[in-house]
Amino acid sequence: VAVPPPAVLLLAADAVVGGIDADLTLTSLADLGWKAMAVNLSDIAAMGGRPAHAVVSVVGLSPPELEALYEGVLEASAEYACPVVGGDLSAGDQVVVSVAITGWADGPPVLRSTARPGDRIWVTGRLGAAAAGLRWLQEHRPPVGLVPPTGAVAGAVAGEPSDCIRAHARPRPAVAEGSAARAMGATAMIDISDGLVADLGHIADSSGVGFDLVDEHDLPIAPGASVDDALGGGDDYVLAFTLPADVDAGEAFGAAGLPAPFPIGTCLGDPARRSSGGRPLPVTGWEHDL
Amino acid sequence: VAVPPPAVLLLAADAVVGGIDADLTLTSLADLGWKAMAVNLSDIAAMGGRPAHAVVSVVGLSPPELEALYEGVLEASAEYACPVVGGDLSAGDQVVVSVAITGWADGPPVLRSTARPGDRIWVTGRLGAAAAGLRWLQEHRPPVGLVPPTGAVAGAVAGEPSDCIRAHARPRPAVAEGSAARAMGATAMIDISDGLVADLGHIADSSGVGFDLVDEHDLPIAPGASVDDALGGGDDYVLAFTLPADVDAGEAFGAAGLPAPFPIGTCLGDPARRSSGGRPLPVTGWEHDL
Repeated sequence: VAVPPPAVLLLAADAVVGGIDADLTLTSLADLGWKAMAVNLSDIAAMGGRPAHAVVSVVGLSPPELEALYEGVLEASAEYACPVVGGDLSAGDQVVVSVAITGWADGPPVLRSTARPGDRIWVTGRLGAAAAGLRWLQEHRPPVGLVPPTGAVAGAVAGEPSDCIRAHARPRPAVAEGSAARAMGATAMIDISDGLVADLGHIADSSGVGFDLVDEHDLPIAPGASVDDALGGGDDYVLAFTLPADVDAGEAFGAAGLPAPFPIGTCLGDPARRSSGGRPLPVTGWEHDL
Repeated sequence: VAVPPPAVLLLAADAVVGGIDADLTLTSLADLGWKAMAVNLSDIAAMGGRPAHAVVSVVGLSPPELEALYEGVLEASAEYACPVVGGDLSAGDQVVVSVAITGWADGPPVLRSTARPGDRIWVTGRLGAAAAGLRWLQEHRPPVGLVPPTGAVAGAVAGEPSDCIRAHARPRPAVAEGSAARAMGATAMIDISDGLVADLGHIADSSGVGFDLVDEHDLPIAPGASVDDALGGGDDYVLAFTLPADVDAGEAFGAAGLPAPFPIGTCLGDPARRSSGGRPLPVTGWEHDL
């Protein structure tokens, strides 16, 4: 019999808090359920793993609200073949959806702390769509309330940037891309949840490197998004990864049938360096308040 | 080389909500952290598994409060050899500590749904101590506030039922007992978190059996606790398990160096039957409000 390669068990957890991580006047509960799963699936993706199982703890929802939330939870669960195998329900004054997830990596998972000077930086998709979608909702939408209709993705209106809104409401974790990046030897990886500059900063801080990005206007910016959205907007859940400069990620992604990733910069030896086209970048993105 | 027996990966999650699952005017944050870990360790124990790793998501605590919480989290982690490998921090108006935990069972885990008529019911320890401890604190203690000193277990005063208070503040998951029960062929198992009658009711409902317990006054009641504490008080985290009547759990526990468990009743074929000494039991215990 064939002996499978040694697999590494992964475990991650991330909570979504109503009013903090999601504006419940702009996000339907189904979308909140999807997002709670998506942020965790993305954590597994960013280690180069395959999701396995999830557990979901919910605080502060009534039974009909819970049903609406689970619609999105189970859609994400089905889409990413990650069964929800348990969880917990509690009363409470604030909506908190805590998901924990297991996954498997077919070898050592990719960390944030192992990027090296000279590595090229890649992203798996265009940037800034989710921030642009959220801003449009803030400017144009009447609040949807806690129970469906799923306001954020249903019923497009004229001028609505529907791809950006979908990127905000239903972010798609880059699981296949993360596995491909791991398989081709990615030296470090992270999912862009706080914003590109902030999340590359996490890799840089952990790895003791700096970075220079391409000129701002050469970044792969999503249609409808601005440079600021691309640099500072969070919640895109695109993956950023680093790779020895002589490896062409585009070729390997193409061979795996995945959309071409974008090279966006280079890791540098000076850990204080954070620049784009040689010019210092502002510190930007979501600051965790704890 | 020896091939290890096939192990089964377990995953569980349980959240502790301030003001709902714990009165934060009577519970120190270190004790809350211990409890958040303990309820999850107990979930693994109740399946007959060994805890492996935990992740902890915390909502609504300031940095010094978080430090106090983690004191208890890490004490439980060390005591049960269950490293905390990640987690998540968020702002919020209410304290929510969500823990998810993995574990391994050296064979099929024990479920709630597989008790059979005629099985004997055992518990791994005396009952009611946690409820008695909580009641004493409610009646006697000045509130301790959110930050240590760890009011609930430090500084005993005259007449304080310190074993009961410790059972409430620092419940001890019966991990070794759960593994022993699984190994000897337990047909069903649960941890007593909602109360003995309520939790045996969960086994009975899932398994389609009823039960008759020994006379109330023959139950193994903890010193300082009442019959009502033993039947309806939750949070003891003693395990209740069912076993074919011809298996002597006491012998196997003794051989494993564990305290003798107590036989407290028998499973019956009539699923409507819930009695003690032949007299119907009141429905009692913690009712989940969702």
